[in-house]
Amino acid sequence: MQNDRKLIINAALTGLVPQKADTPYVPITIDEIVKDGILCYKAGASMLHIHARHENGKPAYEKEIYKEILSGIREACPNVVIAVTTSYRVHKDFDCRTEVLSLEGSAKPDMASLTLGSLNFRNSVSITEPAEIQRLISIMKERDIKPEIELFDSGMVNYLSYLIRKKILEFPIYANFILGNIATAQASVSDVAYLVNMLPEGVIWGGAGIGVNQLMANASAIIMGGHVRVGLEDNLYYDMAKTELATNEQLVKRVVEIAKLFQREIADPLYVRNLLGLNSNIS
Amino acid sequence: MQNDRKLIINAALTGLVPQKADTPYVPITIDEIVKDGILCYKAGASMLHIHARHENGKPAYEKEIYKEILSGIREACPNVVIAVTTSYRVHKDFDCRTEVLSLEGSAKPDMASLTLGSLNFRNSVSITEPAEIQRLISIMKERDIKPEIELFDSGMVNYLSYLIRKKILEFPIYANFILGNIATAQASVSDVAYLVNMLPEGVIWGGAGIGVNQLMANASAIIMGGHVRVGLEDNLYYDMAKTELATNEQLVKRVVEIAKLFQREIADPLYVRNLLGLNSNIS
Repeated sequence: MQNDRKLIINAALTGLVPQKADTPYVPITIDEIVKDGILCYKAGASMLHIHARHENGKPAYEKEIYKEILSGIREACPNVVIAVTTSYRVHKDFDCRTEVLSLEGSAKPDMASLTLGSLNFRNSVSITEPAEIQRLISIMKERDIKPEIELFDSGMVNYLSYLIRKKILEFPIYANFILGNIATAQASVSDVAYLVNMLPEGVIWGGAGIGVNQLMANASAIIMGGHVRVGLEDNLYYDMAKTELATNEQLVKRVVEIAKLFQREIADPLYVRNLLGLNSNIS
Repeated sequence: MQNDRKLIINAALTGLVPQKADTPYVPITIDEIVKDGILCYKAGASMLHIHARHENGKPAYEKEIYKEILSGIREACPNVVIAVTTSYRVHKDFDCRTEVLSLEGSAKPDMASLTLGSLNFRNSVSITEPAEIQRLISIMKERDIKPEIELFDSGMVNYLSYLIRKKILEFPIYANFILGNIATAQASVSDVAYLVNMLPEGVIWGGAGIGVNQLMANASAIIMGGHVRVGLEDNLYYDMAKTELATNEQLVKRVVEIAKLFQREIADPLYVRNLLGLNSNIS
């Protein structure tokens, strides 16, 4: 067991999919997202993965909305690492996907998602062509935003190796395995082991799982020396039987409890900023 | 070692990518494709995976071209199993992709490719959304054409399990692992073992590899009781050092030699038709 490194807890608060009709606990408005971000930070999250929404629940790409969310969170917890999405799933236009990357000052994201390929979800597709991946990397490099890499299957791990070999991506590198979707990699311990064994040396990785896979993917990552992405973006329930709706804070707190049992300390934001080479002088 | 079943050799003659400038041996014209198909059949292939081209080398979706290829091959070897492509890579329009499925009589394909998801290649993307997968399956079912399933990564294997569980796909099922592309599953023995272990019970599978991975993927499949897809679509060279350009016939002959050394008999087309429940009364 690799428990010699502190555990980064990345709280994925909202995502694109869950609506208030699915769970009253999913934060939708700017205020709700800010509030949940602060609660998760206080519970042990050092990183927040942010999607913006319109008041009616529809996903938003507009930087004005992101600006208020990021400024709001930074006002209460200036150091917490904030990663924003560049997802294709709803806003397919490249300029929409990257609008959030132009934010400055206290609303500038530290990191932004970078999915290393194209994949199917249950009823939709997520497309990031090779040229778009490289374009996203250049934009992020130019704006000093660190990629929050998303790996959905073994081929994306191979593509990550290629990008490192070609020096298109540079260390430190942080990547999340997002496991348990119907048309991408699964989340059993053997799946996680297979994928982690393929990872290039030195990549800092986290385990995330969809639905009931969240707890399994998180647990595997904790005992293998990886990190954790957890939250309502990926999973709405506290229990495997799906009878009890969770809050983001509860899900973060459970990861903290598990980590303590396995004797892994919880990373704070400054530890993460140092590890990932992020700016520590947030204005 | 599972050598109790006969080896199906599926010759992927042309594909979308190789041009005469890359290798003089890639069959492009109708006559060349027919001739190579016959040579491969005589060398031991029981199945031919067909892409059509225009005279100038550009990929063609037009059924008139496919009709001449399929009729030409059937005239010389009426039983050989013929699978046609429905690839997205060049002709992205669904009607173009499926035009070939409307052929009748001696030009009717026995099988057609069905990629179970979306993926990146080195410089391009291949998109088959969930709804398109299900539409392709219905069209094939309606026209009594068997899917030649293409699995590019572990998530597609999981999606195959889902389609079987939902009775959307029915046995017998034939699926090729296409391994060694830069952004999909790799082709080492441990990769093949991982993927094959995930396969639902009873799926008849083949191993294909891109470039130097072809020999490795084929060899793993032969010793694991799988089948083989081989040919210039996936690999242009006979040797690992890439000094000697191959012909389709040579590549098929080498698989036959390897199979003999591992004591696997070579399947003939009637064996395959029986195994896959294909019509044996080709007009």
